[in-house]
Amino acid sequence: VNAPERLLAPGPVAVPAAVLAALALPVVHHRTPAFVEVWQRARRQLATIMGVSGDDTVILSGSGTAAFEAVLLASVPRGGRVLALCGGKFGERWALLARTFGFEVAELDVAWGETFDADVVAARVRAFAPDAVTVVHSETSTGTLHDIEALARAVRAAAPDTLVLVDAVTSLAAMPLHPHAWDIDALVAGSQKGVMLPPGLGFVWLSERAWNRAPDAATRVASFSLDLHRERVRQRDGDTTATPATSLVVAADVAFAQLLTTGIERRAADLQRRNRALLAAGVTLGMQPLSVRPSPAVAAMLTPASLSAPAVTRALAARGWRIAGGQDHLTPRLLRPSALGDVGDADVVAFAEVLEQVVAELGGPAAASGVGAAAARTVLEAPIELGGPR
Amino acid sequence: VNAPERLLAPGPVAVPAAVLAALALPVVHHRTPAFVEVWQRARRQLATIMGVSGDDTVILSGSGTAAFEAVLLASVPRGGRVLALCGGKFGERWALLARTFGFEVAELDVAWGETFDADVVAARVRAFAPDAVTVVHSETSTGTLHDIEALARAVRAAAPDTLVLVDAVTSLAAMPLHPHAWDIDALVAGSQKGVMLPPGLGFVWLSERAWNRAPDAATRVASFSLDLHRERVRQRDGDTTATPATSLVVAADVAFAQLLTTGIERRAADLQRRNRALLAAGVTLGMQPLSVRPSPAVAAMLTPASLSAPAVTRALAARGWRIAGGQDHLTPRLLRPSALGDVGDADVVAFAEVLEQVVAELGGPAAASGVGAAAARTVLEAPIELGGPR
Repeated sequence: VNAPERLLAPGPVAVPAAVLAALALPVVHHRTPAFVEVWQRARRQLATIMGVSGDDTVILSGSGTAAFEAVLLASVPRGGRVLALCGGKFGERWALLARTFGFEVAELDVAWGETFDADVVAARVRAFAPDAVTVVHSETSTGTLHDIEALARAVRAAAPDTLVLVDAVTSLAAMPLHPHAWDIDALVAGSQKGVMLPPGLGFVWLSERAWNRAPDAATRVASFSLDLHRERVRQRDGDTTATPATSLVVAADVAFAQLLTTGIERRAADLQRRNRALLAAGVTLGMQPLSVRPSPAVAAMLTPASLSAPAVTRALAARGWRIAGGQDHLTPRLLRPSALGDVGDADVVAFAEVLEQVVAELGGPAAASGVGAAAARTVLEAPIELGGPR
Repeated sequence: VNAPERLLAPGPVAVPAAVLAALALPVVHHRTPAFVEVWQRARRQLATIMGVSGDDTVILSGSGTAAFEAVLLASVPRGGRVLALCGGKFGERWALLARTFGFEVAELDVAWGETFDADVVAARVRAFAPDAVTVVHSETSTGTLHDIEALARAVRAAAPDTLVLVDAVTSLAAMPLHPHAWDIDALVAGSQKGVMLPPGLGFVWLSERAWNRAPDAATRVASFSLDLHRERVRQRDGDTTATPATSLVVAADVAFAQLLTTGIERRAADLQRRNRALLAAGVTLGMQPLSVRPSPAVAAMLTPASLSAPAVTRALAARGWRIAGGQDHLTPRLLRPSALGDVGDADVVAFAEVLEQVVAELGGPAAASGVGAAAARTVLEAPIELGGPR
């Protein structure tokens, strides 16, 4: 299949040419010194991108969902209590996941696009006494960046031993992460997002507190191919239980090196500029940002009531642009373009122009010609702030 | 990493150039008509390669081990009994896997390289009354092809409802499979073997008997990302629970089409010729076939007592050839070259020449110059038998 579409979605994302080229290298056997060198370098680079000391990361062959499952089963004792901070599709998924494995689950919800109040979270932690709190850093379904630092501090103050398990699927490599300073217990990510790889790898880091919470397999829900405790020991030695997705790992090594050459702070600033530019273009065309705290990884915007979001995504696709629409109750109204992949400023401006054409064609709010692209350009040309969002 | 090594291992295998090129195509979003078309075509082609009617196959992102885990959890009720036919590393793995998830496990073992006696299997089935029997079709650790048809018939005669779950990891696409005629209940395979893809995808087919054995999730061991029951329903609609490894799926579509153009019978005959040629070369150089019933997918041979197998694999690697060695107690003596991947007759002859040099260099049995390659050529030039092994 040859993909003519320009991918402007919050994952899967457009992958840089050098990374695609690495995928096409001849297959190497996973039990060779050449592959083990790539593997260990990829794990070390992943640690740097995750902002963790040492190189104690785990690379799984599978989805980000599988990686989150692995983290939950590795760190929460069987029958334990999980408080899931929902507020979006992925927050809800971790509640469902925990319930599926027999954990006692409480959900704390907010309207999609809203953030959690740290005091409310703390009160729920005191009342429910969970073993673990699950929280999504950048909730892709709503475009919301949750304040992990503040939430983790609130959890820690309410009950110091509670694990804070963070879905960093769309925040990894989209912004600097500080797991030690934030005092959190797990980072989970997937390959098809900020690190700009195809889907198929999951990335995990756990705190020592999380590793030590249920060290005896007899106290955990059974797992085999997703057993992080065994995998951690093997991966330190350059080994894995089952054959890993070697081609994706070879590509990851290249992608991670590119990202670290750019620098995560610089990359985060570019992403934030581009996604703000997408939001600004949308606003001039009558859209409304969904989130009160927009993620740097995606520009989630509601269409005016008169404009069907699926009609917009279809019209964009007909012009060769692929963005994400909304999920669940927001399907009729939500658009989620994103500059998360190998997307430059020029792509953002070109997209703004096409979005303007589509809105006009579909009878959306009238706007002066060129205002969408102009709004995007204004944001893109503003001085760059390093440091990134929290 | 650029791989200078020529890969002659029973997986991961050398991947054809057209399949590597497909891996490097721009990433497509998994929720697009273009990808869904590829996805459904890949699932249909997989069904043909598996020899099953319809298109009710499941493609998982992960290892063959993860796929076997998914099959066990989908088909055997919680706390059920599993009879594992061992006789090799992978046979033993499925016993360990079943035990990990709390099934009551009995093991039937034979010496590595031996096959199971159907009457003995039937007697164990009558005595133990398992819910399922696990069996490896082509046991890669010993190079043994087990007679699935005879074993399934024996199980079925002893206890008609017993599920027969078949690890077809190295038999898929290495020989014609006849799951309906054999009356078996599951086929499990991985991408890095006979279908000549990189590692990272698992392939599954279940019989209606297996799907219906534990249809209520409450009676099964909990699973989420490997829940085949949910995955089956979604995949029929061109959907998946989590983002699939799209690049590998696009490559699978190309690899499957190539294989079906060649034809599985023709491919099986070529593989069998080439692996027999590897065995024949080894025998002239003092090796001894390990298996009483050699698999068409791998040529497992024991070195003479005076010749260290790891020394042979190291010397081959120094000359740019990567084969597999032995596992567990056979590590000191076993060599496992294989023509399973994109390997031609000329590669087999060239390898036989290099093996002869290495054996001479390491002080192995003296042989007239060129006998290894000559033995390989004799087998390669024999008339082709279509139909393949059973």
